[in-house]
Amino acid sequence: MPVYLDHAAGAPLRPEAREAWLAATEEVGNASSIHGYGQSARRLLEDARERLAAVVDCDPVEVVFTSGGTEAVNLALKGLWWSRAEGTDAVVLPDGEHHATLDAVEWLRGSEGAVVRPVPLSSRGAIDTAEFTRALPGAALATGLVANNEVGTVNDPSVLAAAAAAAGVPLHVDAVAALGHMPVGFRGWRADADAHAGLAAMSVSAHKVGGPVGIGALVVSRRARLSPLLHGGGQQRGLRAGTQDVAGAAAFAVAAELAETERETEAARLATLRDDLVRGILAAVPSAELLGDASARLPGNAHVLFPGAGGDTLLFLLDREGIAVSTGSACQAGVPEPSHVVRAMGRTDAEARQVLRFSLGRTSVADDVTAVLAVLPEVVERARAASGARPGAGS
Amino acid sequence: MPVYLDHAAGAPLRPEAREAWLAATEEVGNASSIHGYGQSARRLLEDARERLAAVVDCDPVEVVFTSGGTEAVNLALKGLWWSRAEGTDAVVLPDGEHHATLDAVEWLRGSEGAVVRPVPLSSRGAIDTAEFTRALPGAALATGLVANNEVGTVNDPSVLAAAAAAAGVPLHVDAVAALGHMPVGFRGWRADADAHAGLAAMSVSAHKVGGPVGIGALVVSRRARLSPLLHGGGQQRGLRAGTQDVAGAAAFAVAAELAETERETEAARLATLRDDLVRGILAAVPSAELLGDASARLPGNAHVLFPGAGGDTLLFLLDREGIAVSTGSACQAGVPEPSHVVRAMGRTDAEARQVLRFSLGRTSVADDVTAVLAVLPEVVERARAASGARPGAGS
Repeated sequence: MPVYLDHAAGAPLRPEAREAWLAATEEVGNASSIHGYGQSARRLLEDARERLAAVVDCDPVEVVFTSGGTEAVNLALKGLWWSRAEGTDAVVLPDGEHHATLDAVEWLRGSEGAVVRPVPLSSRGAIDTAEFTRALPGAALATGLVANNEVGTVNDPSVLAAAAAAAGVPLHVDAVAALGHMPVGFRGWRADADAHAGLAAMSVSAHKVGGPVGIGALVVSRRARLSPLLHGGGQQRGLRAGTQDVAGAAAFAVAAELAETERETEAARLATLRDDLVRGILAAVPSAELLGDASARLPGNAHVLFPGAGGDTLLFLLDREGIAVSTGSACQAGVPEPSHVVRAMGRTDAEARQVLRFSLGRTSVADDVTAVLAVLPEVVERARAASGARPGAGS
Repeated sequence: MPVYLDHAAGAPLRPEAREAWLAATEEVGNASSIHGYGQSARRLLEDARERLAAVVDCDPVEVVFTSGGTEAVNLALKGLWWSRAEGTDAVVLPDGEHHATLDAVEWLRGSEGAVVRPVPLSSRGAIDTAEFTRALPGAALATGLVANNEVGTVNDPSVLAAAAAAAGVPLHVDAVAALGHMPVGFRGWRADADAHAGLAAMSVSAHKVGGPVGIGALVVSRRARLSPLLHGGGQQRGLRAGTQDVAGAAAFAVAAELAETERETEAARLATLRDDLVRGILAAVPSAELLGDASARLPGNAHVLFPGAGGDTLLFLLDREGIAVSTGSACQAGVPEPSHVVRAMGRTDAEARQVLRFSLGRTSVADDVTAVLAVLPEVVERARAASGARPGAGS
């Protein structure tokens, strides 16, 4: 029986989200059209905006729907950059951020004259808040992950937001991996609602919580100054042009609501399963090591170092057993590079190639854990034997 | 019975596209993941890419899926700008382009130092190719609509492409309104496949051909130099990061294939209906005037000037009769401004506020035409009586 332990890369679509999508696509009409069809589509869209706003605790007008997390992150970082205060050119960038952030900032550096102020991660994968605070003064903008998508370590956005507000710097937080798995509240995290500085924007994505791929949102504070990335028809406060994906938004809202409703129960259930998995792995493979924070951690995340065993080979061998896991962010999968997150946690390149991320979610059950533990010792042994070999060498 | 004559703003989702979307969302997994689930999603995605490529006549690798037409246009214009030849700063911009183009170029002008070289439209709404050609030398990039989304006038992209190739300038064409309604062939329009100059990129969108909202594509020539707009995980040749919307792509491919298969039959059927509509309108309202080209025109488009009758009021009164039409691009609807396209065709501001676009499509039938003609004389009379009044004043 197939075992899907890669929920962090993409969660299965929730049936209720599928139904919401279907119902919305029965409606005809562009939500920007004036006629009755358009008004009807518009009502569905604004209903979705209100419901998502309630889940992430912001004003509906602050929800800017995007095509997903990557667009939200790019809009936040480039939008804040293009609207930055005169004379500022520094971007405060913690190590170990998602590649959407890293690559957007690298573009700002290489093409737009930004100066990067890196902030180190702790050995547990947390943003060093003291260093973050020291890097802020005079910066154009800052960014930070709410929860690290690879190792699952959770930061406290309210600490980052307070520091940014105190320094007068607008902050973007990436809540893509966090939404549905831990409390996500824009209003609560924002230190100062009346200023451009402090928490200015927050990225979320639907397909991480059981909504469809292709829809996400950037929450943009009313007070934030942000330039659009997509110009055109003036939709969504002029911040994101383009015909609005009413069906995607409706499905996202339903998925986010369900994820939030179930969150505490699911978090407890998944943490128990995850802890069983970790305990089992450490018992079966004594040299293995759980990376990331033991407690400040996403409930479904187990990120494990298997010394001497290539992550690619492990992934390949597990896949042949019908078990789907990841060596890191799916967005970088296919490129056999050491995890930049693990490197940022002070590990060697070799170690950063010997990790697996197991991510549990809504459809995960105890049998999944049993299935992994049944094959893992042999898989690790074979991966070690093939050490240095490319994926496929074991066949 | 409701009469939907706003297909240009958004066509009803085709049942086959809905089925393709549903089937694809039964698959779990991120198309960038290495494991079997990811590979399976990847196969669906690449199948969709190949099928769309066959419809628009390009190599599959040239298809870059986006979140829709607006993103495709923004990627094309900003991407070509950021990769422009050193020392070039001019953008060749015909009047009467879609707002995605106008607003993206306006941003390039206002924020990035671009110099706009405008190209006039003919009184029929066609790009003046002689002026277009004269504007090209030394430009950073050029753009042009294949078919005007408001008045339906069709240009010949191969003429624009040949001129751009001869001048050494990369060209983007916006085929969003054209796809499914006239022959759209990237390879055939491209004068020189081996150069960066000439036809470099072409925008298309799914929801105009009965696919879902939220998915589109930019066809990018292998030889074109283009910077990405969304940075991140390196998907799609590094040109467009973000988890790929496999279900959206699959649904888009099915819709585009069906639209292409039916195209000639449907074009003939819709042109007949449209001509009946126009004849009936001109008979019932003798002062009315068909704008745009009589023959080089999208088959489902009727764009009519009603002297003395406000377009907003006409739209409102028709909507009360259950008839959905548009005063222009839906993307600008809600903003009661005179049509910039009609203005560019040499008409007055007053005239540019007295137009309606009727756009027919797959679900249009002869009864729709009958329904419009049954109420139009009285509607026009009432709109004229209310002339100068705001929508709603008639109630």
